Amino acid sequence: MSTAWTSRYAQRTRTIKSSAIRELLKLTQRPEIISFAGGLPASELFPTDRFRMACCKVLEEQSRHALQYGATEGYEPLREMVARHIARYGIKARTENVLITSGSQQALDLIGKLLINPGDRVLVEAPTYLGALQAFSVYGADYVSVPSDENGLCSELLEGPLRSGPEFMYVLPNFQNPGGTTLSEGRRHQLVLLADKYGVPIVEDDPYGQLRYEGEHLPPLVVIDRENLRRDNGYSIGNVIYLSTFSKTLAPGLRLGWIVAPPEVISKLVQLKQGADLHTSTFVQMVAYEVARDNFLDEHVKLIRRVYRERRDVMLQSLQEFFPPEVSWTHPLGGLFLWVTLPAGLSAQKLFEAALRENVAFVPGDSFYAPNGSHDDALRHMRLNFSAAPPEQIREGIRRLSVAVKQQLQALPAANSALG
Amino acid sequence: MSTAWTSRYAQRTRTIKSSAIRELLKLTQRPEIISFAGGLPASELFPTDRFRMACCKVLEEQSRHALQYGATEGYEPLREMVARHIARYGIKARTENVLITSGSQQALDLIGKLLINPGDRVLVEAPTYLGALQAFSVYGADYVSVPSDENGLCSELLEGPLRSGPEFMYVLPNFQNPGGTTLSEGRRHQLVLLADKYGVPIVEDDPYGQLRYEGEHLPPLVVIDRENLRRDNGYSIGNVIYLSTFSKTLAPGLRLGWIVAPPEVISKLVQLKQGADLHTSTFVQMVAYEVARDNFLDEHVKLIRRVYRERRDVMLQSLQEFFPPEVSWTHPLGGLFLWVTLPAGLSAQKLFEAALRENVAFVPGDSFYAPNGSHDDALRHMRLNFSAAPPEQIREGIRRLSVAVKQQLQALPAANSALG
Repeated sequence: MSTAWTSRYAQRTRTIKSSAIRELLKLTQRPEIISFAGGLPASELFPTDRFRMACCKVLEEQSRHALQYGATEGYEPLREMVARHIARYGIKARTENVLITSGSQQALDLIGKLLINPGDRVLVEAPTYLGALQAFSVYGADYVSVPSDENGLCSELLEGPLRSGPEFMYVLPNFQNPGGTTLSEGRRHQLVLLADKYGVPIVEDDPYGQLRYEGEHLPPLVVIDRENLRRDNGYSIGNVIYLSTFSKTLAPGLRLGWIVAPPEVISKLVQLKQGADLHTSTFVQMVAYEVARDNFLDEHVKLIRRVYRERRDVMLQSLQEFFPPEVSWTHPLGGLFLWVTLPAGLSAQKLFEAALRENVAFVPGDSFYAPNGSHDDALRHMRLNFSAAPPEQIREGIRRLSVAVKQQLQALPAANSALG
Repeated sequence: MSTAWTSRYAQRTRTIKSSAIRELLKLTQRPEIISFAGGLPASELFPTDRFRMACCKVLEEQSRHALQYGATEGYEPLREMVARHIARYGIKARTENVLITSGSQQALDLIGKLLINPGDRVLVEAPTYLGALQAFSVYGADYVSVPSDENGLCSELLEGPLRSGPEFMYVLPNFQNPGGTTLSEGRRHQLVLLADKYGVPIVEDDPYGQLRYEGEHLPPLVVIDRENLRRDNGYSIGNVIYLSTFSKTLAPGLRLGWIVAPPEVISKLVQLKQGADLHTSTFVQMVAYEVARDNFLDEHVKLIRRVYRERRDVMLQSLQEFFPPEVSWTHPLGGLFLWVTLPAGLSAQKLFEAALRENVAFVPGDSFYAPNGSHDDALRHMRLNFSAAPPEQIREGIRRLSVAVKQQLQALPAANSALG
């Protein structure tokens, strides 16, 4: 009788990949493995005591509100806090521009639901965030992929893809997942101008923006859009939807993200969210607000930056020390990830298996390309996370990984291998 | 430039109603109003102290797990607890059959995403749960509505609608929202047999099942399906997906529900949930587990039953005392709602406005019918909630409402009015 179900699966489930990456990641959870595969924040930094105090305060003073149904838009003081918080980056938003979501992943899902009809094109970076591809593909998205390099999406290659009429473009300007790259200021301006020229809206995903370890903060696309194009009454006429999250600054186990958008877009998203989960946990929103308030979050982010910067540096130094010269990698200015390029002839999938035998794990890069955005080179990349493991494990993990890389290099036919 | 967004809204957003009910409900939040409009649990019963202890325990002992990313399927001990808990109702489920969702509303959304292609028919009761219509309509559902009476969905009228080939049927057998009705045991058997005969799967939504105030618990459809149709290896070959929630027994502000289904259905739903919100808050799941464990939830539900039964009785007595004899209502055996039928010629929409002037509120019944399932009678109903207000407010609210009803009756042309 289970055919009663399986024969009924809607078309949109055909787009669900069997999720090879999920299966891969299960392998990486064995305790002897040093994993650079996940995108996990360092759990030893979670501000546990502050959370405990916040829970007690919320339950002592406002339990009848905190445990009850709440507004779909989100907990008002948290929405206000988000609006205040992003003002420091020049983003002008009022409370009415902010929708609290059940993690940034729900923001992507709601945007897909709102904007994508089957067969619609979405312009994405190659590579791009896997979770966005999952969220959009369910609604029948096709993709136009634009290559990126160390300075982010190659905006000089944008005009053709924009002319092909995508519904929107999805961009991660800061410390991109998976590339670890940052969109340069010049390219930000070019991208915003071209998007305006072709009338293509922008979804700007910025989960890591606050985690910058060197250099100056660059203006978000949403700010450039307003300032350069002289949109004059604040957010309400903007061409950019801006997304971010508490997952990388407070804790991902809360599932708290947010969308900043023009009020008429927010109002549609609110209706879709109502059908999707009514609202995000009132209790969690109130606890997050109590934890973050009185500048605690800002101080806490400074700690995270200090720890992750050290881990990034240890990973970069270890790569330099252990890896053969044929391998190259990005130098991320922030975020959680670093992107490694293997020499021609090597496959990150094969390397993954060899790495597991050395008790070290990563995510092969081909997972991060849209179906039609992949190319031969996609197989030559791996994504390494540097936030989750402590420095000594990072060093040891990179050493182990270098053993696997050298094995694979030595197995290459001599003509292709610089070590041959 | 906001047209850059609005011209792009996907077809599925055209199905979003402007949500008249949302606007109505805003009016009912004025403090002088006694509201029977919401579906809110009594917030004074929330087990606040137990929640505080649970939060402290989770944060002291397992904060690194509780605040980190978690498995999409849900927190394993909570899934086990759900499986154990529903066994008392004869539902045989293993942990692998249970998916934790962000409230029951997300279960409805994921089911819509999994099963509904645009134009697919869903068989529903008339009236039915508004939130299910919202969730399914986004995916382009059409509806086949089957009338219900005091004994629930009229199963003797099912054969024609089943023959029309719906993708699945959506049923609330216990203390239905909005009708307050309970599907009789005879009809449960008939419904399950007919669904099997026509190969139509059943989605059984049971948010209120534990809140029975009189009579004996009736077997869930999922149990009848397995036992009567001799499906012999437990859940894995069943024709029924079973949904429930912690919203009515612990607290709705948690946003915690669950789906029980065959493993191959769960596996598809997990992939869709991953794209929708990655997973439900780890912290909330662990706290709910700590609150509910060691039989606390069972004891707490006894308290809720006692309080709500009294409120139901007060509402029934007040209706009897104050309302004119032309008005009738259901006698709910459990749950949160009662369904009132006005005499011919009266409109619940007009009554709503008159009631607001008397500082009392309810939800007009026409909101609870699928687009093509409505009929003239739909305008003659109102849904009254009896869980949220204390007894003395219930009595006063019903008195106020009776004033509005009598006014409307007196305004009827003499020929139509028994009071004329």
